[in-house]
Amino acid sequence: MGEILPFTSRNNTGFKAFLSGYQETNHDVTNKTLIPVTFHPHTKTILVQPHTTLFDAAIQAGFFLQSFCGGKGTCGKCKIKILNHQTSHTHEEISLLTSEERSNGIHLACKINVTSPLNVEILNYRVEDETHILNSHSPVNLALDSNVEKIHVAIPEPNLKTQLADCDALVRALNRPGQINIPLAILQSLPEKIREYDFNASVTIAGKHILSIEKGDTTSRKFGIAFDLGTTTIVGTLVNLKDGESLGIAARRNPQTIYGADVISRVNHGATHPDGLVKLQNLAIEALNEIINELSEKTSVKPEEIYEITVASNAIMNHLLLGINPRAIASAPYVPAYKRSQQVTANELRLNVLPQAFVHTLPNISGYVGGDINALILAYEIHHSDKMTLALDIGTNGEIVLGSKERLLSCSAAAGPAFEGGHISSGMRAESGAIDQIAMVNGDLEYHVIGNVSPIGICGTGLIDATAIMLKNYIIDTTGRIANPGENSIPPALRQRIVQHETSNHFQLASSNETQTDHSILITKKDVRELQLAKGAVAAGIEILLTEMGIREKDIEQILIAGAFGNYIDKYNTLSIGLIPNINPEIVKFVGNSASLGAKKFLLSKAARKEAHRINDFVEYIELSGHSAFQEKFMDAMLF
Amino acid sequence: MGEILPFTSRNNTGFKAFLSGYQETNHDVTNKTLIPVTFHPHTKTILVQPHTTLFDAAIQAGFFLQSFCGGKGTCGKCKIKILNHQTSHTHEEISLLTSEERSNGIHLACKINVTSPLNVEILNYRVEDETHILNSHSPVNLALDSNVEKIHVAIPEPNLKTQLADCDALVRALNRPGQINIPLAILQSLPEKIREYDFNASVTIAGKHILSIEKGDTTSRKFGIAFDLGTTTIVGTLVNLKDGESLGIAARRNPQTIYGADVISRVNHGATHPDGLVKLQNLAIEALNEIINELSEKTSVKPEEIYEITVASNAIMNHLLLGINPRAIASAPYVPAYKRSQQVTANELRLNVLPQAFVHTLPNISGYVGGDINALILAYEIHHSDKMTLALDIGTNGEIVLGSKERLLSCSAAAGPAFEGGHISSGMRAESGAIDQIAMVNGDLEYHVIGNVSPIGICGTGLIDATAIMLKNYIIDTTGRIANPGENSIPPALRQRIVQHETSNHFQLASSNETQTDHSILITKKDVRELQLAKGAVAAGIEILLTEMGIREKDIEQILIAGAFGNYIDKYNTLSIGLIPNINPEIVKFVGNSASLGAKKFLLSKAARKEAHRINDFVEYIELSGHSAFQEKFMDAMLF
Repeated sequence: MGEILPFTSRNNTGFKAFLSGYQETNHDVTNKTLIPVTFHPHTKTILVQPHTTLFDAAIQAGFFLQSFCGGKGTCGKCKIKILNHQTSHTHEEISLLTSEERSNGIHLACKINVTSPLNVEILNYRVEDETHILNSHSPVNLALDSNVEKIHVAIPEPNLKTQLADCDALVRALNRPGQINIPLAILQSLPEKIREYDFNASVTIAGKHILSIEKGDTTSRKFGIAFDLGTTTIVGTLVNLKDGESLGIAARRNPQTIYGADVISRVNHGATHPDGLVKLQNLAIEALNEIINELSEKTSVKPEEIYEITVASNAIMNHLLLGINPRAIASAPYVPAYKRSQQVTANELRLNVLPQAFVHTLPNISGYVGGDINALILAYEIHHSDKMTLALDIGTNGEIVLGSKERLLSCSAAAGPAFEGGHISSGMRAESGAIDQIAMVNGDLEYHVIGNVSPIGICGTGLIDATAIMLKNYIIDTTGRIANPGENSIPPALRQRIVQHETSNHFQLASSNETQTDHSILITKKDVRELQLAKGAVAAGIEILLTEMGIREKDIEQILIAGAFGNYIDKYNTLSIGLIPNINPEIVKFVGNSASLGAKKFLLSKAARKEAHRINDFVEYIELSGHSAFQEKFMDAMLF
Repeated sequence: MGEILPFTSRNNTGFKAFLSGYQETNHDVTNKTLIPVTFHPHTKTILVQPHTTLFDAAIQAGFFLQSFCGGKGTCGKCKIKILNHQTSHTHEEISLLTSEERSNGIHLACKINVTSPLNVEILNYRVEDETHILNSHSPVNLALDSNVEKIHVAIPEPNLKTQLADCDALVRALNRPGQINIPLAILQSLPEKIREYDFNASVTIAGKHILSIEKGDTTSRKFGIAFDLGTTTIVGTLVNLKDGESLGIAARRNPQTIYGADVISRVNHGATHPDGLVKLQNLAIEALNEIINELSEKTSVKPEEIYEITVASNAIMNHLLLGINPRAIASAPYVPAYKRSQQVTANELRLNVLPQAFVHTLPNISGYVGGDINALILAYEIHHSDKMTLALDIGTNGEIVLGSKERLLSCSAAAGPAFEGGHISSGMRAESGAIDQIAMVNGDLEYHVIGNVSPIGICGTGLIDATAIMLKNYIIDTTGRIANPGENSIPPALRQRIVQHETSNHFQLASSNETQTDHSILITKKDVRELQLAKGAVAAGIEILLTEMGIREKDIEQILIAGAFGNYIDKYNTLSIGLIPNINPEIVKFVGNSASLGAKKFLLSKAARKEAHRINDFVEYIELSGHSAFQEKFMDAMLF
């Protein structure tokens, strides 16, 4: 068995904050009898209120159960085994668990309400490991034109004759045209500080706003953080604003995942729980604060020397960060509260940097083509490119950008969770235990497992590889049907992997002897269908943009694949299953963490900020759900 | 005996807040034995920590002892009688109490530390009565040109084609050039609100900032409050921003008075107590909130319909309100943190109006010629006047303005507390029980007492009248010496009022039979001297300005006397004692609460705001302590 890391054993204050809020809301310990629940294999016992779900109890115990739906009973991932009880199964459990699982006492944690003491074995736990950080080395020039100025000044001392007020003395020392805004928090300490500093200080200014006043000459120290606030992973890059150097990088899993792997689960959580929105915001903020603290500790940059923060993220993530209900994005006509870059203070978001520091979000192109895609375009200057470019960011939604400096189109295709392991029988996220790569070696499969351990399941890239191999070796046809083992065109070793099963066949990647879980890892007909839906949606989106642009696949001159997913997929397999246009593989380029790169560019340059808004004005957004041709293209594109 | 109103019996949340803060800081009830203190004549017993001063204990009990120095042991006003003990007297008590008082067990509450149970009689209590509100009827035209706009809009609804973000829809509906700022708090509720309001809303804007979004058409309701934040009294005027009408007026005594009647005591309190500044700020804020609540209740204007607030006050009051340590104003070179108008949000000051509403302070001309004097000049447009004008605001400091549209000078003369009853043997503030007017009737004195009760003491205006009468009737000469009763030139009835006493004589206004206190009310030689010091300082300040302007007394064409003091003094007596130039009494005009009037003008008109800053640039400030001629003029001006 893999190691279970209780979440509370890590330095995860965000999670703890969540827990304490959680307990406060749901647990009035004064007037009810608490019930013990023991979790194995770690043998940790906690007391919970009657009718707490096991899913919530596990969170309280510090165990981070796998879940895509956030406890709604639709993904079937939060499997546990009840050891001391026979409990009947709900409708949802019956449809999501096999009869074998059910007879073994396996349940979905989200469907069990605690009413008596329980002994529970966690099955489908998640192994926390170092989040993969994709630190791209920028191919583009990062202009150094920071919005943050730090100026060392001798402030004129007042005397009986001049009667110079402190503010006026400061403004005079700065000798800047136009009005300077001195926020109340700075003003409150101004008289004390400038006297303590003997009228010799370094003043940090962003735009028209004074951010801080420090003693003596500290102009050599000026820092910022560029955040990629992803649905799954949050990455922060500490940047020296003097020379543009990245000084450190740190990441955290987005702790909002406990409310669902995908953005829609989180929107629903925010919409349906009274303080759901506040909790989601707090989780994001605490994760950012953990990253800030880690970067500060690693580099000896003090939090109060961090004068600006930029955040690239999809619209729902930036709405949640700002505490704005993103519900309107989740239903037609799918509009965000704002598209332009938002500027708030670190203080307003309770971020542990200089309180007066400004936090800037990258502009959202639409509700589903967010600041992260603006960052991608900004980082790779697609809007200035002579080449006809297709750029993709593939996840639960596949964001697609097509065009060049002449015209740029964008859309978002609802791929569903398949690329992230969701709705797949043995699916899991790209973390330790996941089969992430599969290849044909000497006539049979070989797979690679993240963390070099025995496999637990398969992630999106593994699924694409498996599907491409199955397709190439006639195990599935263009409709996705799995062949019978007797099919002669199939290589013998692969034929043996076809498992006949009631009405349809399965394809076995790993036998129960090979896995950590005592279960085999199979590709079922339904898994193939889920992948078809996902790749169909993306491919149909690409088709719509091509038609709108009036070009054909072969006119595409470069393909950029962004994000974590892009870093691990095999481009030949991606082409062969038809996820991306099956043209010259040489033009496919993986651009890794383009959101971090765009956020860094936005951080370092005022010109880049203007550029990002120009991108927003320039890029045309096509809403696929309002597009007459989409359904037809989607049906076609589902075929391999 | 007059009625003692325990402060806590009133709806005084500010004071309660202060008390709770106070108790929190000084009273750790868990580890010390508390000591009972009983206050008479109300017979209220409270428990206090050992070594609490009786002054503080009285505050805890809800009794508001008279004090000018704020408990520093220098004013001698907080007299109490200890009933169950013989306690020795401190040096300060010996110098400030008569031997008769001391032998009767009278002490200064601020000098007694509670170490054993005490029975205490409060002697020099203050009777709370309705604060006199000076509601001037403006002689000047109040231009209606509010900074606050309220616009009813139909917000375009988004659809799949337009994909209009909520912010962009709002900005489009407003159809305003230039950028609009939507603060985070507004943005956070924007998506929910505009849908709840069916995209039909009234938007309130100040400058570039959206302040609120309300359902439907509410453009007929738009309000603001103009505050005169005085050292002693705070007055708020609720104004309809649509037509400039004053809808209500409410006032509170400035609760900071418990830390001293004058500004310097408060500066010292803030400078010497760890949380002194916070407490002083909170007291001011709570008083403003009480006024806001009263105005709201009186007029059915909801607090969230109050979109802007202006505050006219001296610089120390506005520094304390904003939470800025005003210490630098109290010592050379006496400079404030700022002179220009400050703009903060109601939220930042925790004022109970619309949180996004802006609070604007009127610009300070200097550390001692504050926003209240700017308001005076603004209200009466002295800077546009053809007439050579002398304007005075007399209190602990006498602020003096001299000039016309050609040139305008200002200074502040440290008059000391005499005009407010401080340092005067029977002195008290202008409240119930104070002799405030004295006249000669049928050859003898007659006095008027505020509240038409038996007198307790004498306030500043009474002292001026008394001095003028004494001067006119040869009881004092130009040096201030009190004559002997045998002097023939003195009317017989007045001669009988001269009481011979050791080295100098006293002049009796009221015998012990006439007063509430069993003590007679006397004008002592020292009282006359205090008045000489006060009027000398003001008169010397006027002299300096006249010299600086290159004119003589007779060139003055109008004299404006502002403030509460001005409303009650007799102008002939004021001229006769030489407080103001002894020229034609017809040119003297009392302009009452000019600070409220200026604050209202500032509230109603953007043009007036520009004007106030032009006043600041135009008015020259002369710092008397840096002026070579001041000492000499002062010595001369002390003579009557």
